[in-house]
Amino acid sequence: MNSIRASKTVYGRLIRNNIRLASTTSKKPSKVLTLDTMHPLIKNVEYAVRGAVPIRAEALSKQLQTDPSKLNFDKVVFCNIGNPQQLNQKPITFFRQVASLCENPELLKPENRQLVSKLYPADAIRRAELLLNKIGSIGAYSHSKGIPFIRENVAKFIERRDGYKANPDDIFLTQGASEGVQKVLQMLTEHSKTGIMIPIPQYPLYSATLSLVDAKPVPYFLKEEEDWGLNRKDLERSLHEARSKGVDVRALVIINPGNPTGQCLSEENMRDIIDFCHTERIVLLADEVYQTNIYQPERRPFHSFKKVLKSMGPEYQEQELFSFHSISKGMIGECGRRGGYFECVNIDPDIMDQLYKISSVSLCPNIHGQIMVDLMTNPPVEGDVSYPQYKAEVNAIYESLRRRAIKLASCFNKLEGVTCNNAEGAMYLFPRIRLPEKAIKEAEKAGMPADAFYSLAMLDATGVCVVPGSGFGQEPGTYHFRSTFLPEEHLFDQFCSKLETFHNDFMKKYRD
Amino acid sequence: MNSIRASKTVYGRLIRNNIRLASTTSKKPSKVLTLDTMHPLIKNVEYAVRGAVPIRAEALSKQLQTDPSKLNFDKVVFCNIGNPQQLNQKPITFFRQVASLCENPELLKPENRQLVSKLYPADAIRRAELLLNKIGSIGAYSHSKGIPFIRENVAKFIERRDGYKANPDDIFLTQGASEGVQKVLQMLTEHSKTGIMIPIPQYPLYSATLSLVDAKPVPYFLKEEEDWGLNRKDLERSLHEARSKGVDVRALVIINPGNPTGQCLSEENMRDIIDFCHTERIVLLADEVYQTNIYQPERRPFHSFKKVLKSMGPEYQEQELFSFHSISKGMIGECGRRGGYFECVNIDPDIMDQLYKISSVSLCPNIHGQIMVDLMTNPPVEGDVSYPQYKAEVNAIYESLRRRAIKLASCFNKLEGVTCNNAEGAMYLFPRIRLPEKAIKEAEKAGMPADAFYSLAMLDATGVCVVPGSGFGQEPGTYHFRSTFLPEEHLFDQFCSKLETFHNDFMKKYRD
Repeated sequence: MNSIRASKTVYGRLIRNNIRLASTTSKKPSKVLTLDTMHPLIKNVEYAVRGAVPIRAEALSKQLQTDPSKLNFDKVVFCNIGNPQQLNQKPITFFRQVASLCENPELLKPENRQLVSKLYPADAIRRAELLLNKIGSIGAYSHSKGIPFIRENVAKFIERRDGYKANPDDIFLTQGASEGVQKVLQMLTEHSKTGIMIPIPQYPLYSATLSLVDAKPVPYFLKEEEDWGLNRKDLERSLHEARSKGVDVRALVIINPGNPTGQCLSEENMRDIIDFCHTERIVLLADEVYQTNIYQPERRPFHSFKKVLKSMGPEYQEQELFSFHSISKGMIGECGRRGGYFECVNIDPDIMDQLYKISSVSLCPNIHGQIMVDLMTNPPVEGDVSYPQYKAEVNAIYESLRRRAIKLASCFNKLEGVTCNNAEGAMYLFPRIRLPEKAIKEAEKAGMPADAFYSLAMLDATGVCVVPGSGFGQEPGTYHFRSTFLPEEHLFDQFCSKLETFHNDFMKKYRD
Repeated sequence: MNSIRASKTVYGRLIRNNIRLASTTSKKPSKVLTLDTMHPLIKNVEYAVRGAVPIRAEALSKQLQTDPSKLNFDKVVFCNIGNPQQLNQKPITFFRQVASLCENPELLKPENRQLVSKLYPADAIRRAELLLNKIGSIGAYSHSKGIPFIRENVAKFIERRDGYKANPDDIFLTQGASEGVQKVLQMLTEHSKTGIMIPIPQYPLYSATLSLVDAKPVPYFLKEEEDWGLNRKDLERSLHEARSKGVDVRALVIINPGNPTGQCLSEENMRDIIDFCHTERIVLLADEVYQTNIYQPERRPFHSFKKVLKSMGPEYQEQELFSFHSISKGMIGECGRRGGYFECVNIDPDIMDQLYKISSVSLCPNIHGQIMVDLMTNPPVEGDVSYPQYKAEVNAIYESLRRRAIKLASCFNKLEGVTCNNAEGAMYLFPRIRLPEKAIKEAEKAGMPADAFYSLAMLDATGVCVVPGSGFGQEPGTYHFRSTFLPEEHLFDQFCSKLETFHNDFMKKYRD
C-alpha cells in the first residue's frame, strides 16, 4: 500500500469525523460505510462470471415473470456459468440416495428397514450407514480439514488415479475448489510485490482473488492459434519481465483442462512446466477441476500434475504443488453443495499447520459437500447393485456433453467472422469474434468493451447469457465470449439457430 | 504495512532468489513457501477454540483408539466448541425430513408417493415440494446472496420477530454466521488504522478476523461482577483512548447473548449502545446467533438490535447496523451444514452491491445451509401435522439446556477459588479460577498462560476439553476458561463430579 495515500486517507477521515461531530446542523449525515471508506481492495475486485451481463440477465429473468410482452424470448438461458443442474442436468441417483439417507437417519432404523429397502438399493443403505458411523451426526462441525475417513478415501482415489502414494494428512476438504484456491493464493502473498502467474484468458476467480489479497497477477498468454496451448518460452518471457520490474514471482497457476479455453495439456508440455517451476523456484497451482471432462481421450487424455511430477527424476521430488478438485464439475455437477478438496504435495509442514489454523477460523467445510467428495472419489464399482445405473448415468451425461461441445463449436465456426477451437476438455467454448468497426465504435460510445456490447445485444435478442472475453482477459485487439455448452440437448438445435439469427442480424446492423 | 520493512522483505527475497538461482551445488534447496515467506497476517492469527488445547484433545482422541491404557479416561468430551450434535443432541425431525426429501426428489414422484407417505408426514412432503419448486435443483449454484424465496421468508421472520418491516434485498444468506462476520469486518477495514470495538472477553472469530484483515481491535471490557454487563462509560473510554492514538474507529461489535460470557442485554442498555453508535458515528455489528438460547426469559428476554433501533426516535433511523444469525445454535444446532444470514439495516446501497460482488466470487452459500435457514425461520406452526412433535423436541432441548446451564454453574461455584455467573443466554459458562502462585509459576516455566496450563491439566486428567480464558481475552491478572454446557444430561452428574475431583487434586498439588 502506498503509505502517503494511506495516511491521507486516515487523516482525511479523522478530519471528516471531526467536522461531522462538530456540526450541529440538522443536515442528514452521510453514511459511515461508503464507497469512499470501504476496504479499497474489495472495490477493485472484478468478477465477470457474475458481472454486468449476468446481472442484466437476472433482471430480464424477473421481467419475464412480470412483463414478458416486451421481451424477444420466453426464457433466459444461463450460459455464463458452469452450472449443469440449473439447466436440468439430472444428479447421479446413487449419490443423492446416499445423501438423503444421511440426512434422515430415522430411515435406517430397523422398524423402517422394510419400507426403505423398497425405495433405496442395498448399497446406498450400506454406504449411508458406513458414512454415519464414521461421521457421527452430519449436523456437527467436523475436523477443520475435513472428516478423516473421507480424507482417507480421497487419498486412495488419488493413489488409484496416479499410481503414487497420497497421504490423507496432505488433503484439505473445502467448500468448492474456489475456497481452496483463495486460501492458497492468500497464503502465498507475502506482500504487494508478490507475483502469481496466471493464464490469459483465465477464470476470473484468479484475478479477483489476487486483487483482494493485493498480489500482482503476472499474465502469460495462451496461444489461440495453437489450440490454446502454452509454451515454456512464453512462461519465461512473462516471468523475466515481471522480475525485471521487481515483482517477486512465487507461483504459477495452470488450469488443466482449461477454463475458459478448454484445452488439455500433453504430458510432455506438463513436464516442461514442472521443469520451469523447478528451475525458477515457483510453486505450482494446478486447477484440475475438469479432470473428468475430457472429450478427446485418445489424443488428449488427462494427466494430473502430481502424477507427472512423481514420474520425473529425483531432482523434481521437492517441487511444491497444490492440486485442486471439485464436486461441481465432471458428470456430477453438484455446484450448489459447495464441496471440493486440495492436495498439498511437498508443502512445508509449517505451512500446512497454518492452512489448518486458518481453516479452523471458518470451523469446517460443510458436511454435505464433504459427503459428495467421498462419493465422487469412491463411486459404485463393478459388482455393486447400483453400478449399472451409475455407469449408465455418467456415460449418458458424458456422451451428451461431448456431442454438445462439437455441435456448438461447429455452430460458432459457421458464423461470419467467428472462429472457435474445439473443446478438448471442461465445459466451455471461447469463440473469437471479429466485430465490425461500427460495432466497436458504438461500444466505445456506450463506455463498454466491444465484446460486452456484443454479449448484451445477444442477451437482449435471444435471452442467452454469455460472458464477454474481456472478463477473462484476451490478446489486446481481439474479442471473444465464453459460453458453456450446457443447454439441454433436445433444445440444442433451437439454441444454435437462435444464436445464428442474432449474429447475422448483428453483423448486418453494424457492417462496415 | 511498514513500507521499509516491506521493501526489505522484497529485496531480501529477490537476493535470496538470485543466490539460489546462481548456486549450482546439489544442496537441497529450501521450500519456496515457508513461515518466512508466507502471508504475514495469516501468521499472526490466533484461534483458541481450535487452538493448543483442542489440538491436544484431538491427539488424545486418536490415542484412545490405538493405545487407551495410558489414559485416565475412556472418552474425550469436547466442551471447547458449541457443537451440540457432536455430543448427541438429536436434530429436529421435521427439518431433517424436509432436507432428505429435497436431496432425493425421486421420493416425490407419484409412483413412490404411497410408500413415502408412510415414512414422511404430509407437511414435510409439501414443504419439500414447495422448496424444490422455488429452488429448482438443490445441486445448482443459487443467486450469490441466496435463494430469493428463502430471503423472502427470512424477511417475514424478522418482521414477525420485531414488528418492523424487513426487505429480502437487505438479506445475505451465508455459510454460517462466521462467513458473514468475516465479510463485513473486511468491508469495514479501509486501512490498518481502522479500529473495530470488540468485547473482552470475546469470541475469537473477531480477533482472528481483525488480525487477518489488518484492522485494529479496540477492546472494551465486560464487567464480570455485574453479570458481564457493559456500560456506556466503558465504551466511551475505550473509544476515546483509541481515537487519541490515531485509530479510526468505525464499528462496534456486540455479541448478544454473549459468547463466551452468556449475558443478555436489557433493552435500556441496548438503547444506550445505539445512542453511543449514533453519537460517535459508528456502525453497529450485532452478533445475535444465540437469540433463542435465552434461559431467564422473564428477567432478560432477547431483543434484537433492529427492533430496539426501530423503536427509537427519528434521529436514529439512519444508524447503520448489521445483524447476524445462524442455524448452528438455538435448539437446531445444525453446525455442520454451515448456514446463516445477515441483515443490512441502513447500509449504503453501493456497499450492498460490493457485498454482493464479493459474495459472487465464492459463487453462493451452500444450498443445504440455505434450506435450513428457511426451516429455522419458517418452522411448523400450530395446526400443522408436524407441529406437536416439533414443539416437543424444541422444548425438550431448551429445558434440558437450561437445567444443564444451572447445574454446571452450581458445580463450578462449589469449587475452591472458582466463581461463575449464571448463563442468561448462549451455550457457555466462563468461570473465573483463582490459581495458586505455584501453578502460575509452573505455567510460566512451561511457557503458557496459567489458564492454558490448568485447561491442559483438566484435559489430561478427565478428557474434558475446554478453552482457556486467554483465548478470549480477560482482565489482566484474572484466569478463566470457557466450557459449553452441552454434555448429555444423563451423563452430567458424572461429568460434574469428574471436574470436581480434578479441581481438588489440582489445587492440592499446587497449593501455596
